Amino acid sequence: MNEFRILEIKQSVFEDNDRAADCLREELRAKGVFLLNLMSSPGAGKTTTLRGTIERMKQSFAIGVMEADIDSDVDAKAIQETGVKVIQLHTGGMCHLDAGMTRQGLEGLGMEGVELAILENVGNLVCPAEFDTGAIKNVMILSVPEGDDKPLKYPLMFSICDVILVNKIDVLPYFDFDLDAVRARVAKLNPNAKVIPISARTGEGLDEWVAWLREAINDWKRS
Amino acid sequence: MNEFRILEIKQSVFEDNDRAADCLREELRAKGVFLLNLMSSPGAGKTTTLRGTIERMKQSFAIGVMEADIDSDVDAKAIQETGVKVIQLHTGGMCHLDAGMTRQGLEGLGMEGVELAILENVGNLVCPAEFDTGAIKNVMILSVPEGDDKPLKYPLMFSICDVILVNKIDVLPYFDFDLDAVRARVAKLNPNAKVIPISARTGEGLDEWVAWLREAINDWKRS
Repeated sequence: MNEFRILEIKQSVFEDNDRAADCLREELRAKGVFLLNLMSSPGAGKTTTLRGTIERMKQSFAIGVMEADIDSDVDAKAIQETGVKVIQLHTGGMCHLDAGMTRQGLEGLGMEGVELAILENVGNLVCPAEFDTGAIKNVMILSVPEGDDKPLKYPLMFSICDVILVNKIDVLPYFDFDLDAVRARVAKLNPNAKVIPISARTGEGLDEWVAWLREAINDWKRS
Repeated sequence: MNEFRILEIKQSVFEDNDRAADCLREELRAKGVFLLNLMSSPGAGKTTTLRGTIERMKQSFAIGVMEADIDSDVDAKAIQETGVKVIQLHTGGMCHLDAGMTRQGLEGLGMEGVELAILENVGNLVCPAEFDTGAIKNVMILSVPEGDDKPLKYPLMFSICDVILVNKIDVLPYFDFDLDAVRARVAKLNPNAKVIPISARTGEGLDEWVAWLREAINDWKRS
């Protein structure tokens, strides 16, 4: 099985994160690496969604995954089973990744031969929304058990994402969750965002999400 | 109906938060106000748990609630319906409350006549764990849909809490969640923490939690 290592990320030295993020995007463009930043609350299903995404895309794209956590390596182990390149990033207690930290992660992962790099950010709806990682696209997961009021409480996160995946729709019957209300609240904050209901567990909706991601990568390559 | 107001919290002026927290605790002691700090991920059920707690305790304790959020007032509205004193705190994008911010909240709420003040912290498993609010006790909620691996990924939060409420146990049959694994992981991080399974929706387990809280308040008064 492919091995993975654990990288202890250091605090960034860049004072201007927006500039560092733009520089990283230029470098990724030059190297042909599409970087996706995946965010959510703890336990919304980032890793399971990633596994389903990888299974559907690994035949056509060389994928590399960065699993950022404060501690543990359970997520990198779960991704390792898919056979793609993976690295576990430890943030040393930090609640988000900025562009400098993402660059350390990409260097640790090794960008050579990678076409699609995915950063699974720290589980947190607040701080990661404030820091541009240098990603080409930002995606978040809102899971049904968290409730439909989250766009009201964490507006910045919903404002900066290109796609909002509404996960765990297989348990919709057991929760009070109004998908139309979420769509309306997201539309108000971020009219261009796409909302895609999925169940990472059953696979429902993942084809639509993967189709969106394929098109985003191809559009970026052509642009 | 009791009115509530929305207070825009300012960044703290105290450089030494631990000292500010100790000072706040002394002041609370002098005033006889027991401060509880309630933390969790977004959507783990803090507000619903609080409502169940208030319904069981408001006959015997004068309760005041501070609802901290980045935006919206949905939580303060939900607490308002219980008839207790409540204030909505807006953190201006900040991901946690420290002791200075908690003090602003308590002053906005008005401590006079309050025996039990409850701070519903920002939904976040990372940053709130790093800042002592001045609370007498810290409690967190882990909800079943988030998964049993959370103590591995967010060890600090599980280390600093006196009680871990495992919420949404009514949906245990629909999720892969090992309660014994959570107990073992918490015991390793924090042997003195009490783990109480609850369902804020059905009320299961809330009596045990409320009994613990009553005893904690009475112990504190006697000490």
